[in-house]
This record gives sequence, C-alpha cells and structure tokens, in this order.
Amino acid sequence: MTVEDTGENTSRQAGGRTGGRRRNRERPVSPPGPQQPPWQLLRRPYEPVRAVSDDQLEDIHRASLRVLAETGINFLHPKARQLWSAAGADVQGERVHLDGELVESLVAQAPESFRLHARNPTHTVEVGGDAVIFGNVASPPYVGDAAGGRREGNVHDFEKLVRLSQTLNAVHVHCGYPVEPTDIHASVRHLHATKILLTASDKAIAAYSLGAQRTADCLEMVRIARGIDDEQLDREPSLHTVINASSPLRFDEPMLEGILHLSARNQMVIVTPFTLAGAMAPVTVAGALVQQNAEALAGIAFTQLVRPGSPVVYGGFTSNVDMRSGSPAFGTPEFMKAAMVGGQLARRAGVPYRSSNVCAANAVDSQSAYESVFSLWGAIMGGANYVYHGAGWLEGGLRASYEKMVIDADMLQMVASFLQPLIVDDATMAVEAIAEVGPGGHFFGIQHTQDRYRDAFFAPMVSDWRNYESWAEAGSPTALNHASRLVAELTEVYQEPPMDRQIAAELDDFVSRRVAEGGVPTDF
Amino acid sequence: MTVEDTGENTSRQAGGRTGGRRRNRERPVSPPGPQQPPWQLLRRPYEPVRAVSDDQLEDIHRASLRVLAETGINFLHPKARQLWSAAGADVQGERVHLDGELVESLVAQAPESFRLHARNPTHTVEVGGDAVIFGNVASPPYVGDAAGGRREGNVHDFEKLVRLSQTLNAVHVHCGYPVEPTDIHASVRHLHATKILLTASDKAIAAYSLGAQRTADCLEMVRIARGIDDEQLDREPSLHTVINASSPLRFDEPMLEGILHLSARNQMVIVTPFTLAGAMAPVTVAGALVQQNAEALAGIAFTQLVRPGSPVVYGGFTSNVDMRSGSPAFGTPEFMKAAMVGGQLARRAGVPYRSSNVCAANAVDSQSAYESVFSLWGAIMGGANYVYHGAGWLEGGLRASYEKMVIDADMLQMVASFLQPLIVDDATMAVEAIAEVGPGGHFFGIQHTQDRYRDAFFAPMVSDWRNYESWAEAGSPTALNHASRLVAELTEVYQEPPMDRQIAAELDDFVSRRVAEGGVPTDF
Repeated sequence: MTVEDTGENTSRQAGGRTGGRRRNRERPVSPPGPQQPPWQLLRRPYEPVRAVSDDQLEDIHRASLRVLAETGINFLHPKARQLWSAAGADVQGERVHLDGELVESLVAQAPESFRLHARNPTHTVEVGGDAVIFGNVASPPYVGDAAGGRREGNVHDFEKLVRLSQTLNAVHVHCGYPVEPTDIHASVRHLHATKILLTASDKAIAAYSLGAQRTADCLEMVRIARGIDDEQLDREPSLHTVINASSPLRFDEPMLEGILHLSARNQMVIVTPFTLAGAMAPVTVAGALVQQNAEALAGIAFTQLVRPGSPVVYGGFTSNVDMRSGSPAFGTPEFMKAAMVGGQLARRAGVPYRSSNVCAANAVDSQSAYESVFSLWGAIMGGANYVYHGAGWLEGGLRASYEKMVIDADMLQMVASFLQPLIVDDATMAVEAIAEVGPGGHFFGIQHTQDRYRDAFFAPMVSDWRNYESWAEAGSPTALNHASRLVAELTEVYQEPPMDRQIAAELDDFVSRRVAEGGVPTDF
Repeated sequence: MTVEDTGENTSRQAGGRTGGRRRNRERPVSPPGPQQPPWQLLRRPYEPVRAVSDDQLEDIHRASLRVLAETGINFLHPKARQLWSAAGADVQGERVHLDGELVESLVAQAPESFRLHARNPTHTVEVGGDAVIFGNVASPPYVGDAAGGRREGNVHDFEKLVRLSQTLNAVHVHCGYPVEPTDIHASVRHLHATKILLTASDKAIAAYSLGAQRTADCLEMVRIARGIDDEQLDREPSLHTVINASSPLRFDEPMLEGILHLSARNQMVIVTPFTLAGAMAPVTVAGALVQQNAEALAGIAFTQLVRPGSPVVYGGFTSNVDMRSGSPAFGTPEFMKAAMVGGQLARRAGVPYRSSNVCAANAVDSQSAYESVFSLWGAIMGGANYVYHGAGWLEGGLRASYEKMVIDADMLQMVASFLQPLIVDDATMAVEAIAEVGPGGHFFGIQHTQDRYRDAFFAPMVSDWRNYESWAEAGSPTALNHASRLVAELTEVYQEPPMDRQIAAELDDFVSRRVAEGGVPTDF
C-alpha cells in the first residue's frame, strides 16, 4: 500500500503530479501545506445521541425546577430582582424563588434559532436547529507557542491570534478575546481589543459582560463596523456574550448587567453555568446536571423577562474536578456524558445549545488531542449548535496556544467533513466501476476514480501521512512541529479583510474619543 | 480551583491522603500511577448512530447483492468452489456468482451473538448484541518504544507486549500477535508464539489463517490450555481469526483454509474486507461500502455454508488512501462515516460488528491521538461490538508501540467509563445536597461528596492534570513521557496467570514434539 505498489498510474494518482514514476520514487512526498477547506456553514445530519432516557430527562428537569422553587437562586443585581418581583417571583433579599410554571413560560418565549450577524455578511451564522458553528478560544490569561514559550497575554499576541482566527476557515466566529491583552489598561482594553477584532477580522464577535458602559461601547463599535443604525442593530443580533452563573446558584452583578443591556438590545446571550462536579456542583454527574439546568433555565428565563424573544443559548460546561488535585478536568468521560445530556436539556428547553472543545493538558501532546476529541465527540453527538473554545484552548483554558489553534482547526475541519452527509446514488455506489475493475484489479486508473480523486477525501493540514522512511528522512516531524510551521505559513498568508474607508474612520474616531475620555473608570 | 482554595477538607478530598493541609500545600501533587479500572465487560447504552437513512442502507445492500450476482467474486480454493457449486451457485473458473437469495439465506443462519472463551473463564467475552470488547494491536512487523526506537519484530518484544496486554485491564482479548516475532522461523513461529500467548496471558487468543496445519496446531494448543476435550471445544468458540478479503472481490487460499477449518470447528471468524477507497475499492465511500458489504456477505455466507450457525463477525475496515502519497489514511472523516455505516450493514445482516482503533501517525503525538479517538468515535457510535487493534497500533499498523499501547488502553478505559449508563435517581440528582450547600457555597465538605468522591470520576493513568507550575517543576512531562514511565511500571507489576501444572506440561510436550517434527513446511 505504498506508491510503489500501484503501477503505471501512480504519478497521476498521487496528487496530480505529472512527473514520471521513477522520479516520484526518488522524491519523498512533501508534508501537507496550509490548504484548507472553505469557510462553510455546517448542518448535523445525525440524530443527536441520548445519554439518558426521556423519563430520566424529565426527572432531571423537574429536579431543576424544584431547586429553583425550593432553594432559589441569588440574583446579585437590584434591577434584576425588581424585574423578578414584578413578574410574581418570591424575592427575599438576594434570593429569588422561581416557580416552575413561571420559568417554563418565560423559557418558551426564547427563539429556537436565529442569526448572528458579522460585518461581512458571508460570515453571518445561523445559531440553533441543526446548524453547527465553531468559535476560537476565549479569555485565557496566558499565551504560548513552541518558539516563545508561555507568557502573559498581551496585545501583540492578541492581534496575531485574531489574525490567525480570521485566516482559519474552521473558525466561524470569535468567542471573545483569544487571549487577554493584559498590557492594555482595563479602563480602555475593551475599546482597543474590540477595534482589533472588528478591523483585523470580519467574522462575528463577542463582548464581555463587564458593566453597562463597556457593553454600550462594544455595541456602538459593532454598529459602526456593520454600517447600520440602532434600529437595524436591534433587529439583527450582531454581538454575543457569555453569562456564566457564579455557581452554585448565583448570577453576579456584571453578568446581570450584561443580560440587562444585551438582551434589551436583542443581542445574543449564552447562559453557561460553571458546574464542576465535586466543587461548585454535586459530585454526581446527574446532580451537577440538575444544578446546571436550574441555573441555565433561570438565566434564560431572565433574558426573556428583559426582552421576550431575545436570542439566548443554553450553555453546558459541566465537567468534573480531579479529586487528587482539585483541578478541573476536561474531555473526561463525565464531560462527554454531561455534554450529551446538556444537549437533551437544551432541546427540551427549545433553545440552541453550546458546548466546548476543552482539555486540561499542559502541552500540545497526545493528551491535549485526546481530551479535545473526546470533548468534540460529546459536543457533536450531543447536538451542540455552537462549539465554544473550538480552537486554541490549552491548560484548562489558562493558555491560548498557537499550535493547538492550528491542530484544533484541522480537527474541526475533520468534524466538518464528518458532518457532510454521505452521498448514496448510482454514481457513488459505483457498481459499474466495481464490475469494470473486477476481482484482483485496482481502482487507481479507472475513469470513476479519475473524475473524483482530487476532492474525494478530506485533506488535512497537520496530519503527516508519509511512510516512515520519508518521514524519518524529513527529520521525524511531530504534529507539533507541523503546527509550528503552519502557524508561520498561515500568518504569512493572512489578508486583512476590506473595510469601507468612512467606516474605518468613524471607528477610529469613536475609539480615540472614548480613550481620550478615559474609557471606563476602574477601581484598581 | 486548586487544592489551596478549598479549605479544611482538602487533604481528605485530594485522593484520601491524611497529611495535614500545610504539608499538602508544599508538596506538588504526584503524577498519576498505574492504577486501572478493573477488567470488565461493557455494554453500549446508546442507540448506534445512523450515518445513512434506512432507504440508503437498502440501496447499498442491494447494490452489494448485485455485485455478487453480476460481477461475482473469486474464491481461490477448489474446496470452497465445490461447496458453492453444491449449494447451487454459478461457478466459472475461480469466479463464483452468488444469487442474493442464497447469500441472504446463508447469512441468516449466523448467530447474532455468542461467547468467545478464554482459558480463564472470568476473561470469557460476549460478542454481539450491545456488548463491546477491546483487543490489542495485531500483526505489525515493527515494534518501538521511546527508549529503544523502531526495530523489527522479535520474540522478546512479542512476549513483553503479550505481558503488557495481559496487565492492561482495558484489553479484553488478544487480536493476534502484538508484533510479528520475525526472529522465529516461520515453520515453528505459530507454535512458540501461541504458547507464549497461552501461558503469559489468560485472555482469549487468535490464530492466523496460514494453512490447515497451523490452524490445527493452534486449535490443539487452545484445547490443551483450556483443559477440555474436542467436543467441548466444538461447542465453545475458544479461538478466533480474521479472514481478510484480498480486495477487490477475492478470498485467497490460506484465508479460505482458515474458514474451512475454523468454522467447521465452530470457532469465531471475523470477515474483514480490506477496502481502501481509491485503491482496492471505489474512490467514493458509498462505493467502497458496497464492495465491503459484498465481500463481507460472501465471506459470512461461506462460513455458514461450511457450518450453519458457526460464529462469525462482520468486519468493517473501509478507509481512504492519501491521494498525495497513495498511503492508507486512518481515523479520517471518511473512516468515521464508513465505520458507522458498517455497523448499520452488520446489524442488517444480523451478526456482530468489528471496527478498529487505527491511525496513520509515525509518532506518539497529537496526530496519533486524534486519529485514534476519531476512529473510536466512528466505531463506538457506529455500534461496534469488537474494537480490533484497540491498543498499540501506530504507523498505519506497521509498528506496535509500547507507549501508544498504554495511552490507547487509558483511552479505552475512558470509552469504557463513557459507556457506563448515567445513574439518575434521587441520590444522584442531589436536590437535598444542592439545598444544603445553597447559593455561593461549595460541595467539597458535605456528606454527599464525602460518601462518593473516591470513585465518583474516572481516574486516568496517563493524563497529567496538575497545574502548570507543579507540572513545569516536575520537568514538563508529556503524555509520551508518562506512557514510557507507565510501560516500565506496568511491566514491573505484571503477574503470570496461574496454569495447572499438568496442563503446562502437556502444552510443553505438544510444542516440543511439533517443533521437533519441524513444524509446518515453508517454501522460503
């Protein structure tokens, strides 16, 4: 099964080269390059897998409603409690006790799917239904690559990672900051970072829920970048944010500010409880899911209290802690099962579902890969509509890795290819081609192959499929070595997406003005 | 989210150590050890995923029957052709044209599930239904580890790998030789190798179909090792073999000898076409599956012609070639889809299904891990009953890797844990525990956690979940480093399984006699 075994047609078969057979033998096959499949919208052709029965799902759902009614949940924002009180909820101090009927009637108002708009309309995505989108990593405080090692997040790496995320076709949207640019003062960080996201890329972006003023700034920048008015912005979700429950059973003030402002403007909110079984949630996966679901439903219901019909996503992030060290673990069997049940709960709630591509590994090694693919397995088979942290996450989310971003992007493209439905018709079933070749023949030379071989199979960027001898001769490169090379090659081919000159000037002016005003006051 | 955050109960939570909190703080958490979950039989709790619709499945199945009827298939063994002729098939030279009705009526006689007996009855496995078993790697000509590099297969490594496979609880059965012991002459290799398999391990074993005499020798050795008579052996499948179609559309003489002898003795046969799309099968996945199914059904039907009701498994191995190099690729999106459709076809045929854990990587790196987990994803969600090459496969099956075997075994244990159904009851849903902790609390200290934390989560051998600082202080070990250490530790704890002294002597005598007789004549 090497090139040498296959006879005369080999040189044409082996990737369209026209050199003679002899020359091909002597020349080792080159490693894969940065060719990628195009940016494309994906749909899941498989039924999501059920990890619990419908009866068990109802048990979990009812238990979650019991938690919200009996124990209640803290909303650490006076305005939020006022809204709940006005809606008839039982508010005692910070604690809000929510009746199951109230929760369900609010959740029922959330849309099953919607669009998240990018400034480049061809990068606008659908969220929900059977659509599947991938985002890059969000929010790590550290960044690293093989050449430079691990370092604190900074604006230089921030911009490089935004460009890499723009170049990688596997990445549909920006989940947030691919690394925290800690060298920009927090008072103006959102202004500079969002400007880079909006100019170095034309994919949809996210904002952090860190108070009303920052949210207003980001909304205004997105409006300017899209060249639309406020009314159109309110019709077309163009910014998204993650609202983490401060588990167990708490939504803190900045997060609630985020819902109050973004849901009010019909922007996309992902409610994601941070329910690590054994730490901020029960040590049992079923218990962690009961709590996740209680928090998610409460958060989703609140978005609908703020604005009925506003776009909201059910975020599942339940994993377990390492009971030896107390560290969070990711891509574990528990994570996979929780990801699949999370999908069942989200579909029961009738809203899109977010899961993640996560790992706990400290190095870009086998562990980082198997934990990531196990995460993707749980997410995709669980019916995730949005795979958050899809590319670049390392070290439990503490580090953005350039090499991991490229490897993840290649893995996401494999998943994308896996999601393409198999074409079964007379031409693909190839009964005539099989008859033509007959017992003991080979398929390299026949017309059926000639017509299709160029695009027949997924062609990876990273995977090295050379035989051992060619590979050893090339210096025995690992996936990490290839990824390092590809980071450089992809950075080289980056193209800044065009932006209307007037829009660019308006964006510049806005950021300059807001920076001159001192941005947002910080108390540190 | 580190040990330090969690308060007084930390030292007990962090793995049952009883040292004081202060001491735990100063001592970095140690890396994981060779503790493994027990050897256990597994059942898939999830519905297999369908990659094609029922109508498409029928189209593929009917196309396969058309191939067998119209093109036919070569059986390169006179006895086989005689049997087909007697059954009413149209035999012309080597070519056998098979009527769909004949094929289906024979396939219908194969059992849906059966048991494969090990000499240690606790290691006997069920094959079929919703049972899932894992085997180790079979048949690579090369072997390698980080310390010794890549080398030709030899009996020393063979025995070490058999011991490692015995020690690894994730491995249910031996798929064959974990590496080819090329330093033993081919005339007597099966005698020495099978003796090592039967003495150094007590898990079920396989034999290669390399002619009647070798098969008879292996059967006799298994009979002796199990301490049973021929009649019991004929009742209880105790040996298995893989019959590869020599694709396209051929079964060669040694393989058919295997079926003729092993099926006749009611032993387990896995029929696995080697249908690489674009080389020995059509370049389209649907076409490769039509051909796979034609070859598999013909082989399965033939086992039933030899002995109705004999145990047989549908093997799916369809993957694609790298069109750049002509090399086989594994763990690709095409492999995943083909693995899932293979399961649908096997269930339609009513026989157990075999898939594989395979990769094309040359190193124990990210690529080897993601290709393997993608393979497992396709196999497990496709409903595979038997995951062949489950632990140790590297380099497209050309090399057995010690480190990969340990990493794979850990990944198989993760899959095993993923296959454990989620327990959903009042205790696990933990509504009371959630109420006890309340908003903003933590779950470390409560009784619900105390009662469960020791066994709550899967504990990996390989994965390093320490925080970056502890990990860097320990020398930044990768998964490969951990696997190297674990190979040594697992080799150290290996225990030879007991064997009745009289049986051991009988086995010795048999092998000595057959070796003295010169084993099996070879023509090389």
